[in-house]
Amino acid sequence: MLNEKNVKLGKVRSSIRELFEYGRKRKAEIGEDKVFDFSLGNPSIPVPAEVTEILKELLVSGDPVALHGYTSAPGDYNVRKALADYANSQYGTKLTADCFYMTCGASASLTATLNALLNEGDELITLVPCFPEYKIFCEHAGGKFIAVDTREDDFQIDFEKLQSALTEKTKAVLINSPNNPSGVVYGEESIKKLAKVLSDFSAKRGSPVYLISDEPYRELVYDDSIKVPYVMNYYDRSIVCYSYSKSLSLPGERIGYIAVSNQMEEWEEVFAGVMGAGRALGFVCAPSLFQQLVARVCGKTSDISIYKRNRDRLCSALESYGYTVVKPDGAFYLFVKSPEPDAIAFSARARDYELLIVAGDDFGRKGYARISYCVAPDMIERSLPAFKALADSYKKGKN
Amino acid sequence: MLNEKNVKLGKVRSSIRELFEYGRKRKAEIGEDKVFDFSLGNPSIPVPAEVTEILKELLVSGDPVALHGYTSAPGDYNVRKALADYANSQYGTKLTADCFYMTCGASASLTATLNALLNEGDELITLVPCFPEYKIFCEHAGGKFIAVDTREDDFQIDFEKLQSALTEKTKAVLINSPNNPSGVVYGEESIKKLAKVLSDFSAKRGSPVYLISDEPYRELVYDDSIKVPYVMNYYDRSIVCYSYSKSLSLPGERIGYIAVSNQMEEWEEVFAGVMGAGRALGFVCAPSLFQQLVARVCGKTSDISIYKRNRDRLCSALESYGYTVVKPDGAFYLFVKSPEPDAIAFSARARDYELLIVAGDDFGRKGYARISYCVAPDMIERSLPAFKALADSYKKGKN
Repeated sequence: MLNEKNVKLGKVRSSIRELFEYGRKRKAEIGEDKVFDFSLGNPSIPVPAEVTEILKELLVSGDPVALHGYTSAPGDYNVRKALADYANSQYGTKLTADCFYMTCGASASLTATLNALLNEGDELITLVPCFPEYKIFCEHAGGKFIAVDTREDDFQIDFEKLQSALTEKTKAVLINSPNNPSGVVYGEESIKKLAKVLSDFSAKRGSPVYLISDEPYRELVYDDSIKVPYVMNYYDRSIVCYSYSKSLSLPGERIGYIAVSNQMEEWEEVFAGVMGAGRALGFVCAPSLFQQLVARVCGKTSDISIYKRNRDRLCSALESYGYTVVKPDGAFYLFVKSPEPDAIAFSARARDYELLIVAGDDFGRKGYARISYCVAPDMIERSLPAFKALADSYKKGKN
Repeated sequence: MLNEKNVKLGKVRSSIRELFEYGRKRKAEIGEDKVFDFSLGNPSIPVPAEVTEILKELLVSGDPVALHGYTSAPGDYNVRKALADYANSQYGTKLTADCFYMTCGASASLTATLNALLNEGDELITLVPCFPEYKIFCEHAGGKFIAVDTREDDFQIDFEKLQSALTEKTKAVLINSPNNPSGVVYGEESIKKLAKVLSDFSAKRGSPVYLISDEPYRELVYDDSIKVPYVMNYYDRSIVCYSYSKSLSLPGERIGYIAVSNQMEEWEEVFAGVMGAGRALGFVCAPSLFQQLVARVCGKTSDISIYKRNRDRLCSALESYGYTVVKPDGAFYLFVKSPEPDAIAFSARARDYELLIVAGDDFGRKGYARISYCVAPDMIERSLPAFKALADSYKKGKN
């Protein structure tokens, strides 16, 4: 008998993927420009030209043996030093190179972190809606996945629900802000309150709860007034999981990092756990060429003004058609309220209008659907009549 | 409490790494050219110039969104098709793109394969000496690691020992040829016999034993007479784990693959298990730029003639000084017999002569030491007097 759990996991495609595959077939049938695919969170804008230039330069001028060689397991020291310096300059932290562990992207950051923290049966609290793979990563690490609903109207943290979910077994709380799929950002007041809740609970229980912040969308915010707080400045037992997939449009290259706050006394133990977990999971080091790259483009992003334009256009159009949307402050997702209670039926009906959007059920939240607006602006324009017709179909009582 | 197993794993450096770090310090003390570091298996020859050219070309001419974008989980279809076509042309197999799963290197190939096959308590048989991480990968996947000694004199498979290690719980046998650390290659007769043993046992037991072939050194053989048999041609339940780290000198870039033989009836189940395991471990896809690269350089290698020269020079010199060496047919390692029973003492004494070599104990075989000859040829020349003096120290009865 094979490992049935993994066989099953390999056979069941996520519904996001299913929808994307459906879209590919449908485009072949009726034409590329007739199908409006809002299913995937795949960046649609290219890497900054500077990234391509630096990569070319590294290939030409670097010693090829060192450039493509193994780095140490946590990553090249100078790369990690550059990332620490950048974080310190931005957030006023006092991180060192030794707080950073380079990874093959955000998923690897999460699996290494969870395998470092969790023992069999430990509980991981996540706020839903959330990225569906969290549950898989948690359970593979031996943990129990506890989904806690965010508030009904604005998808901010519901502290009452969070507090009643904390138990003797809670090892960590995992947050994701800017959020996939809601686009919501947790502001400073929320993070302060979260830190207080976790500190108080840890003190009362006599053992710490860790805060894991999954932030691949950190730079993707579209208004100057919106700040994404750096969790380490509010809570000492913080671990930041980062990826360059979205900010630099490099999702296929698998490059990111884990930063363990050195404000907790046991940070070196936690870091050792990350190192050991990375080793056991089969991550030898993060891709070496891209390690060198990211050290040289700290804080740079692709031209995200396109996402902002997409967001603004789509939000105002959908609202004018009568949809209720949660105004997204960041990421490149729009969470729209289903005009009927069943969002799966809503997204199925959307498909009749060639609109591919994902029911919120997949993210742990019923009654909403996710629209990924990391797409070509002209597709948004072309899709608007379909969104209008879809809204009208409900008004006509076809519900 | 953190996950103590992973914390411990993260703290304990492998002795190979320890020795390498010692070497770095020692070089700073007495000079770069005075220390002879044979500790690591890090390719010393650069990538072929063609690789750099193709990478530059991809960066310039490719659509950057697609080039750096997510591929499907098993990898870009056209890449996998190219690898299947190449394997079929070389080995006469009938593999398709759907047999290939692109990975972040050999370690990732192994962890995904083991997590696909093993259930808690299943046994994995490995032939020692072997790469020390096998045990870690196996145990993280819930398996029990069973080390079976190879023959005393030539490190070939000891079929008697192998047969008595097969039990009700044996799920797979993992081989590595050309072998790290012995450099030994299992020839066609060995693989035929191995296939027969595993087939007979599987038939008798009524449930299959899988054969995992870890072959990052496949192309690194130095005599035309030496052939590395393709296991799928001898045993239907074969899974090949490959990496481009050594053949193309790209160890830091983390690119390799798993090929599941489609000659076994349940191959699609096994492949699904690999997919699911990859997902649960946090591997989203293999690095996309390097996927495109490897499809265009099938069968190419770095200039391995340098390794052959190193091997020949080192073997003949060491033999002339009185050492007993296992003649390596492949990889870039030389296994030398310790002049005293305790190879740890031998490698410690070697250090007094500034020679950094790793005791075989770390690979599960006492009485030998590993010399990695993927080093600059002139370092080998400069090291020879030290090897001679070390041998002489034993002759003078300083043992």
